[in-house]
Amino acid sequence: MMMSASEALAAAQRVMARCDALAAISETTEGLTRVYLSPEHLRANACVGEWMQAAGMTVWQDEVGNICGRYEAAEAGAPALLLGSHLDTVRNAGRYDGMLGVLSAIETVQWLHEHQCRLPLAIEVIGFGDEEGTRFGITLLGSRGITGSWPQSWVTHPDGNGITVAQAMADVGITLLGSRGITGSWPQSWVTHPDGNGITVAQAMADVGLDSAQIGAAARRIEDIVGYLELHIEQGPCLEQEDLALGVVTAINGARRLHCRFTGEAGHAGTVPMTHRKDALAAAAEWMVFIEQTTREQDPQLVATVGTLSCAPGAVNVIPGEVSLSLDVRGPLDHPLETLLSTLLTQAGAIALRRGVQFTSNEFYRIGATACDSALQQALSHAVETVQGRSLSLPSGAGHDAIAIAERWPVGMLFVRNHRGISHHPAESVAVQDVAPALQAYLQAVTLIAGRS
Amino acid sequence: MMMSASEALAAAQRVMARCDALAAISETTEGLTRVYLSPEHLRANACVGEWMQAAGMTVWQDEVGNICGRYEAAEAGAPALLLGSHLDTVRNAGRYDGMLGVLSAIETVQWLHEHQCRLPLAIEVIGFGDEEGTRFGITLLGSRGITGSWPQSWVTHPDGNGITVAQAMADVGITLLGSRGITGSWPQSWVTHPDGNGITVAQAMADVGLDSAQIGAAARRIEDIVGYLELHIEQGPCLEQEDLALGVVTAINGARRLHCRFTGEAGHAGTVPMTHRKDALAAAAEWMVFIEQTTREQDPQLVATVGTLSCAPGAVNVIPGEVSLSLDVRGPLDHPLETLLSTLLTQAGAIALRRGVQFTSNEFYRIGATACDSALQQALSHAVETVQGRSLSLPSGAGHDAIAIAERWPVGMLFVRNHRGISHHPAESVAVQDVAPALQAYLQAVTLIAGRS
Repeated sequence: MMMSASEALAAAQRVMARCDALAAISETTEGLTRVYLSPEHLRANACVGEWMQAAGMTVWQDEVGNICGRYEAAEAGAPALLLGSHLDTVRNAGRYDGMLGVLSAIETVQWLHEHQCRLPLAIEVIGFGDEEGTRFGITLLGSRGITGSWPQSWVTHPDGNGITVAQAMADVGITLLGSRGITGSWPQSWVTHPDGNGITVAQAMADVGLDSAQIGAAARRIEDIVGYLELHIEQGPCLEQEDLALGVVTAINGARRLHCRFTGEAGHAGTVPMTHRKDALAAAAEWMVFIEQTTREQDPQLVATVGTLSCAPGAVNVIPGEVSLSLDVRGPLDHPLETLLSTLLTQAGAIALRRGVQFTSNEFYRIGATACDSALQQALSHAVETVQGRSLSLPSGAGHDAIAIAERWPVGMLFVRNHRGISHHPAESVAVQDVAPALQAYLQAVTLIAGRS
Repeated sequence: MMMSASEALAAAQRVMARCDALAAISETTEGLTRVYLSPEHLRANACVGEWMQAAGMTVWQDEVGNICGRYEAAEAGAPALLLGSHLDTVRNAGRYDGMLGVLSAIETVQWLHEHQCRLPLAIEVIGFGDEEGTRFGITLLGSRGITGSWPQSWVTHPDGNGITVAQAMADVGITLLGSRGITGSWPQSWVTHPDGNGITVAQAMADVGLDSAQIGAAARRIEDIVGYLELHIEQGPCLEQEDLALGVVTAINGARRLHCRFTGEAGHAGTVPMTHRKDALAAAAEWMVFIEQTTREQDPQLVATVGTLSCAPGAVNVIPGEVSLSLDVRGPLDHPLETLLSTLLTQAGAIALRRGVQFTSNEFYRIGATACDSALQQALSHAVETVQGRSLSLPSGAGHDAIAIAERWPVGMLFVRNHRGISHHPAESVAVQDVAPALQAYLQAVTLIAGRS
């Protein structure tokens, strides 16, 4: 089934207008900020629920605050293909990250509805209430409810600084809250986890009419869902460089995050000769140069970033005695990622030894690479080829709800070009000329997958 | 005139005991903190004044709170050779930085007094009330009163961040407050400069019975003083490495301090390939490696330090878009220092250009190198050779009251080994076995200079 060019353009224009409408539902008057279980979250759910209904779906808000719609199959009660993304945002966000995927999914269903087309599988669309973790700093609450695969120990496991993973994740904003409701993996302790104002998740739920005792009811039975597709902006520059509107995700990058520390000896910046220093910052600088060079040479799909660095005592006239810095390495395959990390840490130790300083590191976050399902990739690639002549397969550098869903069901992702790869920023932008073919490809892949079953 | 070994040991033991006694005069019960115009400052002055009196000196506290003693010459009213150092401390300080010089000067006079020896020149001993600038963050208030050479513009000149030099100096603790009273270079604006509690210098003076209208009266006439000697701990490791107790200072290093900034482009740590990054921290790291290597290779007497570094936005999962860092370069001669600084800044520009990022720098502090007087150096070196067999000439990496005094009178400095060069820290330590020959050499140099005239 194929959406015509004029249908696609009209639908794309509606998607863009709806992204604008949702962007106005913000806790701030300037910029866009919409967090989990806030009044704005409920207003966005209501809005999206109406659009779902208009597209022919039965609509409900589930027990963790995800907004859900079901477009029934040819035979009522059939398993569903799940389409979705998230409706929450970081602070001062762009308007496409997450929302584009939810609204595109609704357009897919709307086209089927307008063409009175029922498939062997039901299509369900979900707008997850929290992926970004902006409010509570805990993650994947939605989808892992079913699999129970989020280890409880992560939540209370302290790092070298006594910071729990939950806190560290909050610090760095790694979170996929809404999707964990679907998989049923909310540990009980999360319910009492407070936000920045000391309000717990349980209280926040009660404030919006949800009952934290019913979280388990959000969990979906494995046999009721056959797979999950997510359309998302790329949040990177690769499609733009290839001059393509669309690409198919091969894997969501695995990541390792470490707190690292060089400990040398503070000293007077005027009196200690260069040859007698144990300058922790000079050691860190040498390592950072190595990190950049080695990662660049090793594999173009690997990235390594030192995103934070602080030095103590931190005075203009004192040689730094201690430097704390973070290391974030990512890649689509776990083995090369592990090899890179090992090379970098070995070199840090060698630099420290040669300079007579200490090096320590503490891994506080690790997530394996998430492979996308090959059958879903094939369907998406076929659809993309039909629409834009050729397809591009690429890894996703950012995390998505699909990570949680993949614990239980096959997942596939369709990427849409975004300008200069700018995301999590008001300058985030997507062209309507790219959304139109994205909707054509998405519909085609959905009907291919849901028509087959 | 020569102090015998047993006399020197007894005097050195008294110096050590007096350092301990002064270390107990602190605003904190743990550690040593004694700031300008505090109750502890006045108690220390009283204590030192009594010791001066017992050593045969006429004692007074001057109009800016320096404690002064005069040991009259063979003929009353003769010009004086000034000996001194400071009695104030940084926070959580060691007990020798400053105090050792004041107490050693008193021992020199005491020996002359006990041997009923009067010289052609008077000997005056001064304990400056503020060198460290811990309280007000403004500097050299004592000695520059006479010369008026402290530019008023420095006090209000803002750096790139809108921070005035006064504030910046406070931030980094560069200060020589008491000595400016002697030279009479207090600008009027300093009187109203508040401390961290909003108390101005004028108020603080009034609180301890001093009149800020009388600051000018602290200024000494040029013809009344022939020169200035200061004994001080080295605050560096050079004497220890040479296995020598004593050394003679050739110059107090000049310094340049700059706020520097690399501005690149923040980006998602997972989605931007290594080859497409404009990572401000990676640029800074490359520059820091160059700074260390080049300074080390260029001249063993030059030092360069990056003591502070902060990166924005500063999240584990975001490529740093902006890095601010400080650069502090020092050396005993202005020309090589200027050449080094120019080389470093040129390279920063080249790194920035190649990486497509911006580099800016703003010099917020500059002090020329202060040469020690050659005749005073010769007298000190001769004395040191007599006492320890050979002398070592070395620059001072740290600033001292002598910088201010040198604007108006010849200065010389005698350095005493301190363990591992640790200073501005409770672990600061000096051996009585080093203080004894220091007192012998100091007396010999003083009598050589003051006996000659």
